[in-house]
Amino acid sequence: MSEDRYKKGMENLKIMNPDSYRDLEKLLNGVAPDMARYIAEFPYGDIYSRPGLDLKTRELITVASITTLGSAQTELKSHIHGALNVGCTPNEIIEVIIQMAVYAGFPAAINGLTTAKEVFQERNEDFEK
Amino acid sequence: MSEDRYKKGMENLKIMNPDSYRDLEKLLNGVAPDMARYIAEFPYGDIYSRPGLDLKTRELITVASITTLGSAQTELKSHIHGALNVGCTPNEIIEVIIQMAVYAGFPAAINGLTTAKEVFQERNEDFEK
Amino acid sequence: MSEDRYKKGMENLKIMNPDSYRDLEKLLNGVAPDMARYIAEFPYGDIYSRPGLDLKTRELITVASITTLGSAQTELKSHIHGALNVGCTPNEIIEVIIQMAVYAGFPAAINGLTTAKEVFQERNEDFEK
Amino acid sequence: MSEDRYKKGMENLKIMNPDSYRDLEKLLNGVAPDMARYIAEFPYGDIYSRPGLDLKTRELITVASITTLGSAQTELKSHIHGALNVGCTPNEIIEVIIQMAVYAGFPAAINGLTTAKEVFQERNEDFEK
Amino acid sequence: MSEDRYKKGMENLKIMNPDSYRDLEKLLNGVAPDMARYIAEFPYGDIYSRPGLDLKTRELITVASITTLGSAQTELKSHIHGALNVGCTPNEIIEVIIQMAVYAGFPAAINGLTTAKEVFQERNEDFEK
Amino acid sequence: MSEDRYKKGMENLKIMNPDSYRDLEKLLNGVAPDMARYIAEFPYGDIYSRPGLDLKTRELITVASITTLGSAQTELKSHIHGALNVGCTPNEIIEVIIQMAVYAGFPAAINGLTTAKEVFQERNEDFEK
Repeated sequence: MSEDRYKKGMENLKIMNPDSYRDLEKLLNGVAPDMARYIAEFPYGDIYSRPGLDLKTRELITVASITTLGSAQTELKSHIHGALNVGCTPNEIIEVIIQMAVYAGFPAAINGLTTAKEVFQERNEDFEK
Repeated sequence: MSEDRYKKGMENLKIMNPDSYRDLEKLLNGVAPDMARYIAEFPYGDIYSRPGLDLKTRELITVASITTLGSAQTELKSHIHGALNVGCTPNEIIEVIIQMAVYAGFPAAINGLTTAKEVFQERNEDFEK
Repeated sequence: MSEDRYKKGMENLKIMNPDSYRDLEKLLNGVAPDMARYIAEFPYGDIYSRPGLDLKTRELITVASITTLGSAQTELKSHIHGALNVGCTPNEIIEVIIQMAVYAGFPAAINGLTTAKEVFQERNEDFEK
Repeated sequence: MSEDRYKKGMENLKIMNPDSYRDLEKLLNGVAPDMARYIAEFPYGDIYSRPGLDLKTRELITVASITTLGSAQTELKSHIHGALNVGCTPNEIIEVIIQMAVYAGFPAAINGLTTAKEVFQERNEDFEK
Repeated sequence: MSEDRYKKGMENLKIMNPDSYRDLEKLLNGVAPDMARYIAEFPYGDIYSRPGLDLKTRELITVASITTLGSAQTELKSHIHGALNVGCTPNEIIEVIIQMAVYAGFPAAINGLTTAKEVFQERNEDFEK
Repeated sequence: MSEDRYKKGMENLKIMNPDSYRDLEKLLNGVAPDMARYIAEFPYGDIYSRPGLDLKTRELITVASITTLGSAQTELKSHIHGALNVGCTPNEIIEVIIQMAVYAGFPAAINGLTTAKEVFQERNEDFEK
């Protein structure tokens, strides 16, 4: 049932990204409310609920992908929060982004590190551990 | 004749994007004035004047393309204005951008919706219709 | 209900892309059968079923987006078939791809035209009309 | 010392990608032999030797990144081999690529799954487990 | 006058890319003959005729750009031919592509080197000098 | 020896990008200090030290590549400074970026020109010569 997908998605979002999803709903409010629902249903309901990879690994590969895209720093920020919320350490996130210099080039990696630093400072994460 | 292309381009621009083109000319002024001329001549003079697709469809596929690029929100803004100026509804524009989630990924689509919302608010468009 | 999304998606696919979806199912068979289901459910069930844009416009903006990506000629082929299946003319498809030279660059547009030519020849479409 | 980086890189390559690196050396032979050395030194010597992430996670984020790029199926193939060589299961690799549909779009994910299927078939991996 | 742009473009093409342009015309023949004309007029007539950079530098920055795109190996091939035709050495072309590893990532650079090797072998260029 | 690469890289950086590198070190400080070292060693130590292309040409192809990426205006800024520091004229830089309209599309080129204008104004460069 579709309602199940939504419910499962909202449960995942509660663990991973409670604030970012609220911001997103507010943003999409009035323009594209269905889009907020699709995000709950497809990425968070269908994909993040799949067995086979734990949430930590799922967030790390998402950080890799959005760093590679290079043009979505708001979403990268939201997923660095998500990664920290499910138990990734700041250091693991930094390692993922550094490695992207090899595949997506140094500019994409430097932009990713800039964004990560902003998130860590907002959260007062000790990112040198 | 080249002057015809420029003239035809300026006519299209007058309908589609009068303010954006003026901003662009001011921006390029002193750095690359030829670039403003090329934009009048090639995209607006050669391409948008072609028969086979109406201006509404041409603006919708442009919104699709720039949303897919992901990294050109200023140009996306200018073409959302253009789409509205030639008679696309806010809802049609939103539909195009939502669909891009399928082909370019959710981050590109969310960025596009954010930009669309800004344009609609600037213009006081009722984007919920 | 999720089953409804799937059913609606399969109905759209039957109109738009009957052969391509069968190829895709065969391809994903054994590796990622869920992916074939997601494709029926999310793009075709959720998105292509939305009111606000007709199927012809939806296929044209998809051709615009995949031409812009530049790296997915198999999917572009499948959507050029889809566009023709829902009533777009070869000429409309060519117009979309030509216009992409402006936003995604000439190499992306030339690759798109090469792919379109292949599809038209396979189908014996008279693409000069 | 630079020689240490090279040595460390070659040790990593021996575990991760012995055949792919040999192919790469042969390919670059005569055109850009330094490039083969840089690949041993920087990605494999500097990056894959860093503590903080194990080789399995490093290969999964690489699969995520190259799937997102969309235009490097030869390198994706080589890293799917690499992922399997360091102990990732076919299923984990498939999960990574499926998730990329969310961030890089369905065409990139479908291309990635096509490439993964080829690798699994070459190796006779049972990818249905 | 537009005819001047076309004439100037064809003169540049005669020096830079005589065979590639003939192939392109044949490819576009029947599908999009205007596109062949636009290519003669805008890139070759307007841009490559501009003073301020010589043709050698213009071809090298084109090789850099298409290597960065990653998804247009046919066009890259055509511009590696073009670069050689206006006097770039194989070694200069290789240097440009190697440097792209820094900005576009190693997969894009390796694909570019593969394509360069093919061109050099076709032409029997001694690419080790 | 690795120390030699670092030393050579720092010498190149002193000529090309003294301020930008200092900013980068400060940015990466605490998050990823190794990344600053890699940048000194690999791009500036290994690549920019290679014979075969002078620093001017190396900076122009970098401007071409980052303009093509479209999503890294901070790095583009830094390399426009670099290009000017090694003797490129504002006009040469503008020519490179204009030409990118052909390969990466007009939005990428317009964004590049916007960034170039900012750099020239910061430096009081007479960009009309």
